[in-house]
Amino acid sequence: MNSPRTAAALVIGNELLTGKIQDANVAVLAKELFALGIALRRVIFCPDEIDTIVEDLNVLRRDHDFVFTSGGVGPTHDDVTMASIAKAFGKQVVRSPEIEALLREYFGDRLTERHLRMADVPEGAELLSSVRIRWPAVMVDNVFILPGLPHIFQRKFPLIRERLRGDAPFISRVVHTHSDEGEIAALLEQIGRDHPGVGIGSYPRWGDGAYRVAVTFDGRDSAQVDRAVEALCQALPPDQLVADPTEF
Amino acid sequence: MNSPRTAAALVIGNELLTGKIQDANVAVLAKELFALGIALRRVIFCPDEIDTIVEDLNVLRRDHDFVFTSGGVGPTHDDVTMASIAKAFGKQVVRSPEIEALLREYFGDRLTERHLRMADVPEGAELLSSVRIRWPAVMVDNVFILPGLPHIFQRKFPLIRERLRGDAPFISRVVHTHSDEGEIAALLEQIGRDHPGVGIGSYPRWGDGAYRVAVTFDGRDSAQVDRAVEALCQALPPDQLVADPTEF
Repeated sequence: MNSPRTAAALVIGNELLTGKIQDANVAVLAKELFALGIALRRVIFCPDEIDTIVEDLNVLRRDHDFVFTSGGVGPTHDDVTMASIAKAFGKQVVRSPEIEALLREYFGDRLTERHLRMADVPEGAELLSSVRIRWPAVMVDNVFILPGLPHIFQRKFPLIRERLRGDAPFISRVVHTHSDEGEIAALLEQIGRDHPGVGIGSYPRWGDGAYRVAVTFDGRDSAQVDRAVEALCQALPPDQLVADPTEF
Repeated sequence: MNSPRTAAALVIGNELLTGKIQDANVAVLAKELFALGIALRRVIFCPDEIDTIVEDLNVLRRDHDFVFTSGGVGPTHDDVTMASIAKAFGKQVVRSPEIEALLREYFGDRLTERHLRMADVPEGAELLSSVRIRWPAVMVDNVFILPGLPHIFQRKFPLIRERLRGDAPFISRVVHTHSDEGEIAALLEQIGRDHPGVGIGSYPRWGDGAYRVAVTFDGRDSAQVDRAVEALCQALPPDQLVADPTEF
């Protein structure tokens, strides 16, 4: 199987770095990319500063097949994502007639010059939209520009899913056990060595006794993943396996 | 007032990048640092890979006064934080007698050699503990090493708070308005120019009509912050101010 395509996310906003808001987009993006067979390798949270965004974006887009930005796309002074991405690519910001028309329709008489700033995109940007999702997602080269508000971030994602579909998805299996991590650590290491295409994770649970550790097996070849799962289930004493776990 | 000390976080774990778990530590850390008057400037999420962690950590610790790591400190193969941090500093990993004693007491007869790996720390690490918080937080130079499990991350934080206390805290005020962002964008930009020590953020709310935008004012000089708040409240038509907002 070919190596997975790689991705990074740049999550932009002082509100996250000052603890006003907890990010909710990374987990959504991570799940989506996993299902698309794309490996999310790095996430950076950075402040609303053009030079910082340019620096981080340029590193991320150099090292990954795709970059997703979240946040900073409104009409106020702290919305500097479009200007920053344009600068990172050495392009101008230009007004998109397509987005301008949507804004004029949406705001009607209340429209201000500032609202129209939401129609500004880096020169040469591609707009992804559909009959059902009229407000476009904006794409510049390998960078997808998404808003920070979680429900809008999610609402636009189908446009990107459509665009990136094609690879074998990652799948994940989980085995829950009453054993603790210290008891199974050597075994997991051995199973990892025996099943090189499978990523094994070990996550202890604190508190109640439903299970002590969730062991996850990730990969894009389901037969390989199943063999690794089977190796653990065979090696553990049967009374250490949890038959009906309540959650991950 | 002196410039704030700066910080970054390195959040380590495949589980976050594959969407299995949503990070909860960044928001907690961000709030804590804000109250300590320390500016959290960057967060990176990276996978459980020694070379990646070394690379990211070295950039973050070069550019910030403090770095906080979260995750990767258990006994299994995917717990590589201590080895990575040691490598980043060019140090060996050594067994801490203090943590070993705690592990022996905690696990008793169930102790395995693998459990003892949780006593391994970079050479020269300082252990922060107290009578009430016996399991130490580990510190190497300007790097604080914290576990990924949110309740343990939080339980150890008082040790760090004690260590870093001293600067004027950041404070934040919020004004809620019925105006939308396009209507107040120019005004906010002007207030920002007039109050250079105050960081102004504009956060639209979608959905119900309690308010349209939350405008936040952050700074370490409360009189300065109050003046910026006052400037907005004076400039907005009174009927655009929300007297009793329900939430941020």
